[in-house]
Amino acid sequence: MTDRNLTSWAASAPRLVAVAAGREPADLVIRKGRWVNVHTREILDDHDIAIADGRIAYVGPDASHCISPKTQVIEAEGRYMIPGLCDAHMHIESGMLTPAEFARAVIPHGTTTMFTDPHEIANVLGLEGVRMMHDEALLQPINIFTQMPSCAPSAPGLETTGHEITPDDVAEAMAWPGIIGLGEMMNFPGVINGDPKMLAEIAATQEAGKTVGGHYASPDLGAGFHAYVAGGPADDHEGTCEADAIARVRQGMRSMMRLGSAWYDVESQITAVTEKGLDPRNFILCTDDSHSGTLVNDGHMNRVVRHAIACGCDPVVALQMATLNTATHFGLERELGSITPGRRADVILTSDLVALPIEHVISGGQAIAINGECLVDCPHYDWPARARDTVKLGPDRHAQDFEIKAPGGADRVTAKVIGVVENQAPTKALTADLPVRNGVVQMDMANGICQIALVERHRGTGGSTNGLVSGFGYTGDMAVASTVAHDSHHMIVVGTSHEDMARAANRLGEVGGGVTVFRDGKEIAMVELPIAGLMSDAPATDVAAKAQKMVEAMQACGCTLNNAFMQHSLLALVVIPELRISDLGLVDVTRFELTDLIREST
Amino acid sequence: MTDRNLTSWAASAPRLVAVAAGREPADLVIRKGRWVNVHTREILDDHDIAIADGRIAYVGPDASHCISPKTQVIEAEGRYMIPGLCDAHMHIESGMLTPAEFARAVIPHGTTTMFTDPHEIANVLGLEGVRMMHDEALLQPINIFTQMPSCAPSAPGLETTGHEITPDDVAEAMAWPGIIGLGEMMNFPGVINGDPKMLAEIAATQEAGKTVGGHYASPDLGAGFHAYVAGGPADDHEGTCEADAIARVRQGMRSMMRLGSAWYDVESQITAVTEKGLDPRNFILCTDDSHSGTLVNDGHMNRVVRHAIACGCDPVVALQMATLNTATHFGLERELGSITPGRRADVILTSDLVALPIEHVISGGQAIAINGECLVDCPHYDWPARARDTVKLGPDRHAQDFEIKAPGGADRVTAKVIGVVENQAPTKALTADLPVRNGVVQMDMANGICQIALVERHRGTGGSTNGLVSGFGYTGDMAVASTVAHDSHHMIVVGTSHEDMARAANRLGEVGGGVTVFRDGKEIAMVELPIAGLMSDAPATDVAAKAQKMVEAMQACGCTLNNAFMQHSLLALVVIPELRISDLGLVDVTRFELTDLIREST
Repeated sequence: MTDRNLTSWAASAPRLVAVAAGREPADLVIRKGRWVNVHTREILDDHDIAIADGRIAYVGPDASHCISPKTQVIEAEGRYMIPGLCDAHMHIESGMLTPAEFARAVIPHGTTTMFTDPHEIANVLGLEGVRMMHDEALLQPINIFTQMPSCAPSAPGLETTGHEITPDDVAEAMAWPGIIGLGEMMNFPGVINGDPKMLAEIAATQEAGKTVGGHYASPDLGAGFHAYVAGGPADDHEGTCEADAIARVRQGMRSMMRLGSAWYDVESQITAVTEKGLDPRNFILCTDDSHSGTLVNDGHMNRVVRHAIACGCDPVVALQMATLNTATHFGLERELGSITPGRRADVILTSDLVALPIEHVISGGQAIAINGECLVDCPHYDWPARARDTVKLGPDRHAQDFEIKAPGGADRVTAKVIGVVENQAPTKALTADLPVRNGVVQMDMANGICQIALVERHRGTGGSTNGLVSGFGYTGDMAVASTVAHDSHHMIVVGTSHEDMARAANRLGEVGGGVTVFRDGKEIAMVELPIAGLMSDAPATDVAAKAQKMVEAMQACGCTLNNAFMQHSLLALVVIPELRISDLGLVDVTRFELTDLIREST
Repeated sequence: MTDRNLTSWAASAPRLVAVAAGREPADLVIRKGRWVNVHTREILDDHDIAIADGRIAYVGPDASHCISPKTQVIEAEGRYMIPGLCDAHMHIESGMLTPAEFARAVIPHGTTTMFTDPHEIANVLGLEGVRMMHDEALLQPINIFTQMPSCAPSAPGLETTGHEITPDDVAEAMAWPGIIGLGEMMNFPGVINGDPKMLAEIAATQEAGKTVGGHYASPDLGAGFHAYVAGGPADDHEGTCEADAIARVRQGMRSMMRLGSAWYDVESQITAVTEKGLDPRNFILCTDDSHSGTLVNDGHMNRVVRHAIACGCDPVVALQMATLNTATHFGLERELGSITPGRRADVILTSDLVALPIEHVISGGQAIAINGECLVDCPHYDWPARARDTVKLGPDRHAQDFEIKAPGGADRVTAKVIGVVENQAPTKALTADLPVRNGVVQMDMANGICQIALVERHRGTGGSTNGLVSGFGYTGDMAVASTVAHDSHHMIVVGTSHEDMARAANRLGEVGGGVTVFRDGKEIAMVELPIAGLMSDAPATDVAAKAQKMVEAMQACGCTLNNAFMQHSLLALVVIPELRISDLGLVDVTRFELTDLIREST
């Protein structure tokens, strides 16, 4: 597989052979570094690397024979030469950035390869949206491979996505140049139950000789787990404890251990290697989800590798988990993931293998970052108007659209309330006794109960689902609206004021999506996400700054949660218990069925 | 890739999932064994394996939920359950057996997968011969993958093969169902020098996503070695010392360490793992060449694994080198090489992980051997007449065809003599002063100098090349003739009597090839190899017995060499120094050019 302007090893072989033999000069030589060899797990001092056609031509003790006056020479001066870092599973949309801007943000951190599952845009724009992400990915100066999303909708029958993904879509995508496999197969109950649609997607991927991503989000390691493994997923990043990691690797899957902005699953699993001493080859590091603020302030895969080392992992083993192990998993071990002949010349120079400062980043033989500064252009895809016009509200929303009507003549109702729980993705299914005024159910601000609405935004039906939510801590008149609304990505509006809820919803309709915070009738924060209502094509620093202001605005409205926006955006994720909201109604996610908001009235 | 009657994982997934979940019964359950887990490098007691559709459905502590009255149950009774053994690189023809009879010989030894390079038949019958081997391979009850031969002729310009292999042949073969990659790229000087034909064969293989086999038979680890690596070969089995193994793995190749009938390259290289502590994942075991006698008397890959363990390798690491490492190398790690769900159910039961008795062999879910007895049919391909009629001598040979004519009027000549060296493949380029009688150069039996002839047998030209050879120790009137004559496989006749040489040559013409020994005008041993003059379709025990008699007959003629027949059959291998013989003449393999037999005459 070849993307960007890189020729294949086969096409470059005559030149690589000639350079290694000393008959032709290299384009670039890196001189006198410490070669971190991820094949043997060694560090070898005083080695040179010769590069031609963007690929490694020679690694050995002396590349003098590859140097002519035309050859660029970089003096490593004894620094470590490590392979460019690989993120084995991640969603670009989680950064609220396009692939180009995501790439620009991670290049200075030494990420030269990403395996990305554009699951979010698939829900909004279907296969066409996946292709747009795929096409922008292939323009970048680093390697971005696309995992074809497998599950849109995530919960068939309980929500309506903008588009659906079918087995035929999967089969079609397998022929695209940048597709590396199937994105995480989240519908694990479907696989366990032998759902023909899910098995057909897996089969299409296997028949194309590509890698099936897994997602088994259950602590049960019994028959269901074994059935899921037998269905074909080759990896899993949903493990959270050592037993999870060990069980997966024993069954012939690879354990992907993630450190995302809000995922902390490395420390609890890496003991399988550091303490139990298992063969580390089948353990891999990834991020899954990184917010723009994490990318700007903390790092990307360099952050994960540092963390693994801090957890007691040998630095070279940790690097294997972010380079060779990943490449091998995706059938790319002769294409990237190590500094050896024929591979893409993706090399990082660092002076410390523990602190891992990313001093010099080379991708495809080109210097792309030095000391934190990105040196290259990350070309933007020409996103068509239909990708920027995905927030279709139909008629403007008004305050009364957000009124919850009580049953005729009722004075009080007992209603279901989505209970947000600090630092947890699952919600609680609560109930509350609420007063009725003029036929309208009232919020209970004293007990933190305000309103939530799922506003349909894919087809302009004008529909919305109203519900109740607690746990944010909002006070005063306010509303927060977001078109990032996993997984079907309609619009989630949470507020204490029907007027502000309507304003916030309409505002996102105007700007084509994003996140907005209204207080007392005025917008106090806005993150524009014009592409699919999910991503900005502005730089990560801008998006991170706006996202930070958005979080501060939520706090100004009284919110005290640690990950307030994430909690907000997951309230429609109808695959995680207990109570969620969708365009079809309130969803009981313990029974996987729609449920009424009002339980009884008096 | 699917062969035999095994359905793909994708096609079997609904059943495998149903079995693992307990909704359908397994075909076979192996109960209460010690699971040797090559992914984690663990041994796990008290595990069950459930098998359906020839693949693993479940491995866990209790497969009761997969058992119905229809399920066959094997009680492991605490024995080790190890994956079927894989031979990563080998030539079936070296056993003088067809693929079917080779399979029948190795099945009781626990070999369930072979990667075989039918290089010898390629020289005789070209692409069509490769296809015949490939087709018989796919009929077998074990996995036999074919590596497309890369180098026929081995030495263009210095010999004439029956057929040649071209880059177009390679590209065509890559689409065949059983082709796994390119066979050993022996023309390493060609790769180093950028020979477009060799690089085109490599490119065709890489573009098909398959594995390029290497063969770098030089102790030089300098620029030439690096150039060879840059050309694309992914493995090498020609290393003979620890430094060779380490250099290959550091450069991103896999080191294949071989223990063949006459190759002893494991002990000298495995110290890279056992003493230097390198990551073992890139080290692999193979046999390369096994004679039928070795298969009958000593074993196959079980012999190699035992030997690796005897060399100090951890048993589970040694097993990884003969299972998972091999599967990963060929892109088959989700298809075979471990006992985990979805993989082909290739399992061995053994009660001792060091002595490694092969007690029960299961392949594709079928019991194929118990306690050394093969239980299955190994179907024969219907070899066409043209595969059995490859010894085309043209006119019968007569004693005078083997006379070496002296220059007119000479009484004595100084002639070049091929000097065979005990226990070494390279020969010495010797010279000898020899008398002339009636215009014919005489042998010098007192000094062990007899005659060699390379008899053309592919096109019936009637041609032959006469030469001199020393080192066999033959006495009396005798001749040995063989159509196994690496690599172009004409006929090599060595003898002390022109009459016996003619008789032996004509006799092989009659039987369609093989090896024959004549003494005093009578045949005293014969190994018939009717298929391509290389292989017998008789059982290995028969061939081994005849081969043993042939060796004894050579000894009866005075030969004292350890590997007399191998020495004989390599005398036309015009890629190994110093002096060899081909259909085109005597070859100086230090200068890679034809050379005259008679240096001077007086």
